[in-house]
Amino acid sequence: MVLEKINQPGDIRKIPHDQLPQLAEEIRQFLIEKLSMTGGHLASNLGVVELTMALHLAFDPAKDRLIWDVGHQSYTHKILTGRKEGFTSLRKLGGMSGFPKRSESSCDVFDTGHSSTSISAGLGIVRARDLAGEKYSVVSIIGDGSATGGMVYEAINNAANLKTNFIIVFNDNGMSISRNVGGLSTYLSDLRTSEGYTDLKKATEDALRQLPIAGDWAVERVRRTKNNLKTILMPGGALLENFGIKYFGPVDGANIDQMVRLFENAKKVDGPVIVHVRTKKGKGFGPAERMPERFHGTGPFDIETGLPKVKKTKADWTDVFSTVMCKEGARVPNLCAVTAAMAEGTGLRRFRGMYPERFFDVGIAEEHAVTFCAGLAVGGMIPVFAVYSSFLQRGFDQMIHDVCLQNLHVVFAIDRAGLVGADGETHQGIFDLSYLSLIPNMTVMAPKNKWELADMFRWAIHKADGPVAIRYPRGSVCDSFQEFRAPVEKGRWEVLYDESDICLLAVGSMVQTALEVRQRLRQNGYSCTIVNCRFVKPLDEETLTRMAGEHKLLVTMEENVHSGGFGSRVLEYLCAIGSCVPTLVCALPDAYIEHGSVDVLKKECCIDAESIYGKVVSRFIGL
Amino acid sequence: MVLEKINQPGDIRKIPHDQLPQLAEEIRQFLIEKLSMTGGHLASNLGVVELTMALHLAFDPAKDRLIWDVGHQSYTHKILTGRKEGFTSLRKLGGMSGFPKRSESSCDVFDTGHSSTSISAGLGIVRARDLAGEKYSVVSIIGDGSATGGMVYEAINNAANLKTNFIIVFNDNGMSISRNVGGLSTYLSDLRTSEGYTDLKKATEDALRQLPIAGDWAVERVRRTKNNLKTILMPGGALLENFGIKYFGPVDGANIDQMVRLFENAKKVDGPVIVHVRTKKGKGFGPAERMPERFHGTGPFDIETGLPKVKKTKADWTDVFSTVMCKEGARVPNLCAVTAAMAEGTGLRRFRGMYPERFFDVGIAEEHAVTFCAGLAVGGMIPVFAVYSSFLQRGFDQMIHDVCLQNLHVVFAIDRAGLVGADGETHQGIFDLSYLSLIPNMTVMAPKNKWELADMFRWAIHKADGPVAIRYPRGSVCDSFQEFRAPVEKGRWEVLYDESDICLLAVGSMVQTALEVRQRLRQNGYSCTIVNCRFVKPLDEETLTRMAGEHKLLVTMEENVHSGGFGSRVLEYLCAIGSCVPTLVCALPDAYIEHGSVDVLKKECCIDAESIYGKVVSRFIGL
Repeated sequence: MVLEKINQPGDIRKIPHDQLPQLAEEIRQFLIEKLSMTGGHLASNLGVVELTMALHLAFDPAKDRLIWDVGHQSYTHKILTGRKEGFTSLRKLGGMSGFPKRSESSCDVFDTGHSSTSISAGLGIVRARDLAGEKYSVVSIIGDGSATGGMVYEAINNAANLKTNFIIVFNDNGMSISRNVGGLSTYLSDLRTSEGYTDLKKATEDALRQLPIAGDWAVERVRRTKNNLKTILMPGGALLENFGIKYFGPVDGANIDQMVRLFENAKKVDGPVIVHVRTKKGKGFGPAERMPERFHGTGPFDIETGLPKVKKTKADWTDVFSTVMCKEGARVPNLCAVTAAMAEGTGLRRFRGMYPERFFDVGIAEEHAVTFCAGLAVGGMIPVFAVYSSFLQRGFDQMIHDVCLQNLHVVFAIDRAGLVGADGETHQGIFDLSYLSLIPNMTVMAPKNKWELADMFRWAIHKADGPVAIRYPRGSVCDSFQEFRAPVEKGRWEVLYDESDICLLAVGSMVQTALEVRQRLRQNGYSCTIVNCRFVKPLDEETLTRMAGEHKLLVTMEENVHSGGFGSRVLEYLCAIGSCVPTLVCALPDAYIEHGSVDVLKKECCIDAESIYGKVVSRFIGL
Repeated sequence: MVLEKINQPGDIRKIPHDQLPQLAEEIRQFLIEKLSMTGGHLASNLGVVELTMALHLAFDPAKDRLIWDVGHQSYTHKILTGRKEGFTSLRKLGGMSGFPKRSESSCDVFDTGHSSTSISAGLGIVRARDLAGEKYSVVSIIGDGSATGGMVYEAINNAANLKTNFIIVFNDNGMSISRNVGGLSTYLSDLRTSEGYTDLKKATEDALRQLPIAGDWAVERVRRTKNNLKTILMPGGALLENFGIKYFGPVDGANIDQMVRLFENAKKVDGPVIVHVRTKKGKGFGPAERMPERFHGTGPFDIETGLPKVKKTKADWTDVFSTVMCKEGARVPNLCAVTAAMAEGTGLRRFRGMYPERFFDVGIAEEHAVTFCAGLAVGGMIPVFAVYSSFLQRGFDQMIHDVCLQNLHVVFAIDRAGLVGADGETHQGIFDLSYLSLIPNMTVMAPKNKWELADMFRWAIHKADGPVAIRYPRGSVCDSFQEFRAPVEKGRWEVLYDESDICLLAVGSMVQTALEVRQRLRQNGYSCTIVNCRFVKPLDEETLTRMAGEHKLLVTMEENVHSGGFGSRVLEYLCAIGSCVPTLVCALPDAYIEHGSVDVLKKECCIDAESIYGKVVSRFIGL
């Protein structure tokens, strides 16, 4: 086993050159085995094994700065920097993160998780390095999917006038999470077959030279322009060198020697340089090569068959949304679906198949997605933008400035709201109730169960006439409470149990928790009301006023940060009407919440039934 | 007067062709005269008079959709669509907006204000048009400054596979608000001198053809690639047609006939097409041509001299920030300043002059700016990102994901916080206390006067070790309260007057208002405490607890929306400690606030001294 010799940063440099292929193979097997047990991001990591090895051979991770865009492809980097052992506890509470973490290793330079940040961060580090007069390499590694994000363009634009070395590794695996749609991707993919250009350039230049008069003139004219023939005739050059960025490649991402040579050459450039590496997602594991989307992020799986170890027995919230969209697509001819490169994750794949002309995948481009929806709405369509809660943060200004200011009928289907579990800090959808509620004209809702999710979408599509956000969690849908199905009406809550003493005001996923709290309370002699607070905005002021008058204690419950969330809105209203009913706000703390299973995280954050029950009783007794 | 004949949309088509130059001249004089009295965006509007006329000749604004990026250049469009009279009340409360407004005219298709949204919106409208089977032209008009925003790239990327007509007018005035920095701008500016390329293309192709063997081969090789010689040899083509976008131009933005011809041709393209128009900011008004930055947004001015009518007698908040930055720049060698194309507006021009190597203008690119700052901080610098409050909304996810998650020492200098006045809805900085407070690790401050602003920045630079946001308003600085200058200490408020009965908890600009409220209260026999709540996050829990215990009524005062703002945070804390002291929250309503003078808007929103006094007394009496 060569892998046994890899125990700390730099160990790879001690491995004899002829054993590197074996090391690559062992890393692949290690990843497949470990991830078959823990789950994690498989396909992208299998694709960059040799690339990461080449980076660790050409650069010194203790001194140089490797910045992984998104970061889910950093597993080999973790192995090569002494974190093999961490894979047993990968993405578990207290265990190793699935993303780069500065707190985990000094070889992790910049925390990532969302897409398209690495060039901005890298450029900042480069500028700091130069100002401090230090010498080290800065390398941002970015995939073709991430390259559709606008930040990349802003950063490349800004890097153009840099006069010192900055290496951008373009990891071209010919696809992003979803199928890539858009100009630049196509353009860069064309480079995959552009080896011939170097020959072409020489031939053309020679040809031009051989002409007695016109030839010299043409060569001269071409030379006098900002760009020489090379950059004009080579597509990569034409684009990138016009931006002031050197371009090297494409190079085979399986060929360690070639990559190392190219990286060494790239170090000599006085300015930004892009090294174009062609890799293959899922490389070396048949099922992942065939179904890279399925193995983008996976749970534990069977190595032989590639099938999930845990069979899904229950529909996800996403599935319910998916079904509603398909059904409504048939009834509502102007219904459109928009995704930012997440057709699979958000459940829009079926809609895409059924109504391709009304389905829009805009790439990893949440800003554009939101304003594009505003345009669709102005044009008479009803757009539904399906997006993960934490990614919608990217479209915050566009919601304020383009959608809500004009009070446009755009529906936001916000998946992965609340705690998401294994992906950790960067992916928790715990801010949305706050950042959505502060936007004028926005309606904010959360369903207690699957029927209500469907009802809410139907309401949002058929009845609403302004912007509506519906947020729902990751994972298995709640199918309790079937007996409660009051029609959705704007700003109206649903009273599930109407008693006295304590009133639980619960949002979305917390209604289920409220039921458990109520059972405990009743077992201990308290009477307890539960209100399903469907609308976080607008609040049901009438019901809230009544509840404040009829109970000794109000308890708000949400899977969102305390600050500016549902509880905070309830307090604002109670203050406005001068009510002084004691209120207990149960929400997530003002902190980033690490990876771990959702149930465990809820306990950690004291928003599980037991913790809330404890808090309620102690507060009630103290009244 | 030809202009007299322009009274409703379409009137321009009735003007004899030979009178168009005169109309252009009259519109220019009209704008100069009107704006000399009201102020407004002058330079950009003078630059696009003929362009707008050409658009109104080639397109029917009643049917076709003209989308103005940013929108401050839409004055001629307003004149040509029957809104001449509006210029008397331009940007005044109840008067005409300085930006396109759907509520103002059916010829305004999409509300704008922030940069870089027009192509996204236009593409949405195009898709809606095609789905509905309708026929009209969609035209997005975007300046070269706006083209540095990432949304533009996301949108162009997404437009690439469009098969129906979509016209993008690239209004190239060779500069944006600040000097443009970056690759694409340079690149597109090069096109200004690229008329020769058509000749070159022909010459080169001919040259290649004349070669007996290599010639044919080279032509053939070139033809076999995705792009033909035209698109390869013409820089505009090389870039844009590789994105799948046709490119027409450049055309002289003073030549109406040429522009109309080009627009007519552009209509015939089955796909997205960029028409490149070269204009000149400030055209026809000497002072604005010479100083386009000064005349970007201007107050009333003297037509003869171009000098402001109202002389500035007092420093702005921006000036104070500017001075602190320059002083600290000398003392702190790793202090950096970052702006998103707003060196002038944010007061960083002097810093740029003194420390050019530590000054970074990243273009209109707030997302990149924030993450670039994170990179600078990781590299050991102390970056200060100076930005307008409403534009920082663009960097919301990057603050959460890149700066605060890693708890990096980045300082946000947030100018134009609170009500900004004449620019209206899109520019009011009224959400920042809410969206900043909900981010873990963020410190949020606001100064009462100029000395405190300086103290806060010094504290943020020298003492803080994580992210700090300091927000301050537009306009003249407050120079009262010189006697109160307690040292800044994290999470500590400053008690200015310590009495009983009523406690005013005021943030930033509202401390001055609190003083006026206190005077009225004392005249009427109430005793009144004022606390300068410097830190909105973290709250000064000790002081707040004491104030809650010692007063009959707490009053929170802020220039920010109610939802999730300072008052909301105070209520959260009072609830957590079980305090039931009556509290009155004075904040802005949950609504977009239109243009008008700041003083008048404060009255409208009931956060002026008189309104607050009234609310306090009536609440106090009701206790």
